[in-house]
Amino acid sequence: MPHIDLPPLPGIVGLLAAHPDTAAPLNQLAETLLRGPSPLTPAQRETIAAHVSRGNDCDFCAATHGAVARELGGADPDDATLRSLLAIADKVRVSGRSVTAEDIAEARAAGADDRAIHDTVLIGAAFSMFNRYVDGLATLTPADPSHYDRHAKALATDGYLRPPS
Amino acid sequence: MPHIDLPPLPGIVGLLAAHPDTAAPLNQLAETLLRGPSPLTPAQRETIAAHVSRGNDCDFCAATHGAVARELGGADPDDATLRSLLAIADKVRVSGRSVTAEDIAEARAAGADDRAIHDTVLIGAAFSMFNRYVDGLATLTPADPSHYDRHAKALATDGYLRPPS
Repeated sequence: MPHIDLPPLPGIVGLLAAHPDTAAPLNQLAETLLRGPSPLTPAQRETIAAHVSRGNDCDFCAATHGAVARELGGADPDDATLRSLLAIADKVRVSGRSVTAEDIAEARAAGADDRAIHDTVLIGAAFSMFNRYVDGLATLTPADPSHYDRHAKALATDGYLRPPS
Repeated sequence: MPHIDLPPLPGIVGLLAAHPDTAAPLNQLAETLLRGPSPLTPAQRETIAAHVSRGNDCDFCAATHGAVARELGGADPDDATLRSLLAIADKVRVSGRSVTAEDIAEARAAGADDRAIHDTVLIGAAFSMFNRYVDGLATLTPADPSHYDRHAKALATDGYLRPPS
């Protein structure tokens, strides 16, 4: 049961519906970060978001963004650039201070530019927020996998600015 | 030295200047969360932000928001409601999943309502993002305390939507 009174909607959806003032910049951040201009594809960015959420044990976010990444065609798990960026995102998840110059040099050697590094760090940081928002208020986590498939189809098609139907 | 090419501006200021697309929702989130309608005063909310940032060892954010809280008149450190909310924010900082029904019951017994609990969890979550963004890219942290006093005066007066002068 959620820690506060919320509409019976899963995960962050209930929080966004109940708190429209903060929902507006949170949705805009997700849209810009995951769908706006970036050297990383939307599927690669959703993969980073799902990876961070899995590391943070946020089942709702991990299942949602994993499903969105698949819906968008997925990302090559053997891609050297993506692997180096996932390693950075993992460190950001634990602590921003743990990212070293060597981590950054490895990502550059694997083909990442400044913008890809920036976007990866901010995705890792932003999902460290979304995960804590969702779990810190004990929101509902649907057990049925078909929920995530439906939700992911909507997010893959419409992005983060259209209210869920 | 920052991990990516940034203008020579401290902490998050350089990131916001270099990345205006993501700066817009990040600034809007800070403004709504720290200055918008809430049962918590802006000084109490800045105190929670500073406390979380200190826990995350983000020197730039802790010094900045601590100075803004003082500039806004400060918060009573013996206030039972604020103490119970700081305890929740501390747990959110570590993991959203660590917040228990008992933590929430204690905050309610100390006078916190749903909105105060919501805002505290989201401030704890949001600063877990801002701290990682600032430190994950190794931004500049001024050593001179007068920097934070000047920056805090501007944030206390103008909020988070006006670009720093």
